[in-house]
Amino acid sequence: MDVPTRQAPCGCRSNGRYPGGVTFPVVGMVGGGQLARMTHEAGIPLGIKFKLLSDTPLDSAAQVVGEVVVGDYRDLDTLREFARGCDVITFDHEHVPTEHLRALEADGIPVRPGPHALLYAQDKGEMRAKLTALGVPCPRHRIVRDAADVAAFAAEGDGFPVVLKTVRGGYDGKGVWVVRSEADATEPFKAGVPVLAEEKVGFVRELAANVVRSPHGQAVAYPVVESQQVDGVCDTVIAPAPDLDEALAGEAQELALRVAKELDVVGHLAVELFETPDGRILVNELAMRPHNSGHWTQDGAITSQFANHVRAVLDLPLGDPRPRAKWTVMANVLGGDYPDMYSAYLHCMARDPQLKIHMYGKDVKPGRKVGHVNTYGDDLDEVLDRARHAAGYLKGTITE
Amino acid sequence: MDVPTRQAPCGCRSNGRYPGGVTFPVVGMVGGGQLARMTHEAGIPLGIKFKLLSDTPLDSAAQVVGEVVVGDYRDLDTLREFARGCDVITFDHEHVPTEHLRALEADGIPVRPGPHALLYAQDKGEMRAKLTALGVPCPRHRIVRDAADVAAFAAEGDGFPVVLKTVRGGYDGKGVWVVRSEADATEPFKAGVPVLAEEKVGFVRELAANVVRSPHGQAVAYPVVESQQVDGVCDTVIAPAPDLDEALAGEAQELALRVAKELDVVGHLAVELFETPDGRILVNELAMRPHNSGHWTQDGAITSQFANHVRAVLDLPLGDPRPRAKWTVMANVLGGDYPDMYSAYLHCMARDPQLKIHMYGKDVKPGRKVGHVNTYGDDLDEVLDRARHAAGYLKGTITE
Repeated sequence: MDVPTRQAPCGCRSNGRYPGGVTFPVVGMVGGGQLARMTHEAGIPLGIKFKLLSDTPLDSAAQVVGEVVVGDYRDLDTLREFARGCDVITFDHEHVPTEHLRALEADGIPVRPGPHALLYAQDKGEMRAKLTALGVPCPRHRIVRDAADVAAFAAEGDGFPVVLKTVRGGYDGKGVWVVRSEADATEPFKAGVPVLAEEKVGFVRELAANVVRSPHGQAVAYPVVESQQVDGVCDTVIAPAPDLDEALAGEAQELALRVAKELDVVGHLAVELFETPDGRILVNELAMRPHNSGHWTQDGAITSQFANHVRAVLDLPLGDPRPRAKWTVMANVLGGDYPDMYSAYLHCMARDPQLKIHMYGKDVKPGRKVGHVNTYGDDLDEVLDRARHAAGYLKGTITE
Repeated sequence: MDVPTRQAPCGCRSNGRYPGGVTFPVVGMVGGGQLARMTHEAGIPLGIKFKLLSDTPLDSAAQVVGEVVVGDYRDLDTLREFARGCDVITFDHEHVPTEHLRALEADGIPVRPGPHALLYAQDKGEMRAKLTALGVPCPRHRIVRDAADVAAFAAEGDGFPVVLKTVRGGYDGKGVWVVRSEADATEPFKAGVPVLAEEKVGFVRELAANVVRSPHGQAVAYPVVESQQVDGVCDTVIAPAPDLDEALAGEAQELALRVAKELDVVGHLAVELFETPDGRILVNELAMRPHNSGHWTQDGAITSQFANHVRAVLDLPLGDPRPRAKWTVMANVLGGDYPDMYSAYLHCMARDPQLKIHMYGKDVKPGRKVGHVNTYGDDLDEVLDRARHAAGYLKGTITE
C-alpha cells in the first residue's frame, strides 16, 4: 500500500522505520537512576518510546519504564544487544567506557553525547586540558604524581590548601579531597588513578550555566542559577541566581554555549562555575546529561531540561528555556533517620498545596538523594523558605 | 530491628506495608488508554508505583508503564489477580461491570471512585434520576420504550428534535442520536439497551466544571472551562471560559462540588454543562476520571487533574488547582490522512518553541484522538491561534 507522506517545511523528516504509522523513535537510556526516571517522564508527552538499561529491576527508573533491560553497562555485548531497536543511545551517568561507545558508533548507532564529547565529562584531566586550550577560565591545575608533587604544585601558587581529584569516577564529593599539607595528600593516590591538583578557589558562591545543544547545532541557554552545596552535595538551587551581574550572567551563558559547541556536546550540558570575589567566573565541573542544577526547570521553565535533553538527542527542535516564574527554588531531599518518608510527605502536601514534590522511588538511607522539591513564586524569601521547610521535613531535620 | 517511625501532625499515616523503608503505595489502573498514560506520567514525580491492566501490550499506557498486566477487565478473576498488591484501584474508563467492582470491595480492595458512585457515570438513566432527585438542573428527560414513545416525549415538550442516548456504553458522540421525527427514532432501540430521551438544549456554549475529591472529603475546583465540540468530539478547551459571568462560574463550581459530595465521588469528576441563552447551566454528562476538558491543567494549572486524581484516590492532600497562566488552550490532535505524524510534529516544535505537545503513542487513524497540544499566555486570540494551528498541522488540515 502506498502511504502518503509529506516533508515538513523545516526540512526535517522522520526515519520512517516504523510500520503502521507509528513513526516515533526509541530512545535508549543507559543507567537506571533518577535522571533516567525523570527523562522518561518528560518523554511520555513527547510520544517517545523509551528503553532502559538498568543495573537492577528495582533502580529508580526501572520501576516506571515500560521496556527495561537489566544488565551491566560495562559489558559491550550487553550494550550492543540493548542498542538493537534504539534510534539513539543517551545516558543517566558518565561511566560507560569510551571504547564501548566508539564500538556502538561503529555499529551505526547514534550515541549522544558522543564519546569524543563525553570524554571531557568522564575525565577531569582531559576536561581541564581542553578547556584551558580553548581559553576557558579554570582554576589553576595540573596532574600530580604523588604527595611531594602536590607540595610542589602548592608552592607554585598560593600554597595549601589544594584540591585533589581522581580524574575519573568521582561524583557528589566522592573522589575529591581538600588537603592542607603534603602529609595530608597521600590518600588520593592509593586508587592508582591519575590525580588532578587544583587551587582551592576562594569563591563567593557556585553558579551553574546549563545549556542544551542538538546535533544540527541549535542550542538554548537556561538562566544561570545559584547552587548551594552542603558537604559537597547540592542542597539548594535558586533560579535565576539572585543579584547576579547581568553581564556576568551573559558571559556564563556564552561560555556554556561555546563549550557545548567546541566539545560537540549533544543534549544537556551543565557547566558548574565558581563566582570569585573579583567578579570572574571559573569552570568547576562539566556534566553532559540532565543535572541536579537543572531540576528546577521541571516546574519553573517553559521546557524542562529533561524534555530538552530528549529533544536534543533526537535532533528535534528545542523548547523554550525561559522561566515561568520570577523565582524557582529546588531543594534536594536527602534520606534521614526515618526510613518511612510517606507520613512526612503527606504533611508537606497538606502544608503547601503549591509544593511540587519529585520522589525517586529509592529506599531511604541517610544522606542518599531520594527526591527533590520545587517551589516558585514572586517572593524569593518565601519561595526559599517553603522549599527548605519541605526538604527538611522530609529528611526529618524539621519536625514542626 | 526497631524502625523509628513518627506520626505526621496532620494525622495521616502510611499503611506501612512495605519493607525496607519503601512505603509508597501502588495504584492499580484499569484500562490502558491515554488517560492512564498521563496519570502514570503524573504519578512518577509523586513516587507512586503504578500497575496497569491493559487490553493489549501496545495500548497507549502499556507502552510507558513498568508493571503491565494484559487481560480483560470484564473478567472478575483477571481483576482479582490484578488487584493483588495494589493499594487502590482506579480507572481509565467507566466500563468495568459494577458487580465486579463490588466483589473487589468485598475482597477489601479500595475501589475509587467506588461502584456506588461510578454507577452514575456508567448509566445515564441513573445519572439523570439521581441529579434530578438532588435538584441539580438537567435537560428535560425520561427513559423511552420505542419510537412512538419518543414522539410522545417530544409532544410533552417543545417537539422535535430530541436527543436519544443509550444509557450505557456511549462516548465521544457514539451512542447518541439527534432525531427529528418518530420515523428517525428507531435506530437507538436496536441494541436492546434502555434509551434515554432528552430535550435538545439550545445552548450558547458548552462548559465543564471539574473538581477533585478525596475520601476524607477534601475537594478542589478547577476554573470552569469552555469546551468546543466538533462532530460530537471535544475539539478545543479554553481555560477559563471567556466572559463567563462570575456568579455563574461560582454556581457551576458549587454544583460540581455538590455532585461530587452527594454521589460520593473520589478522584476527578468532570461535569459537562450547557450554558443556556438565558444564563442558566444544565448538566450534560458526568465523567469520574481525568477528562479531556481537564487536559489543559497539565501545563496551565499549578496541579494537573492527573496529579490530583492520583492524590485523591490515595487520600493524599490535594494540590492547588489554580491556573498558572491568564489563558490556557487545549486542542485535540485527531488523526488525519497522513499516518506519519512525525514530520508535522517536528515542524510544530520548530514553529512554536513554547508549544506543549502531548502524544499518546497511538497509531494514526482518521478521526482518532492521538494527542493534544496546550498553549498558554496573556492574549487569548494568540493562544487560541497557536493551539489550533499546531493541532491542524498535526492532523494535516493546515499545511503552511
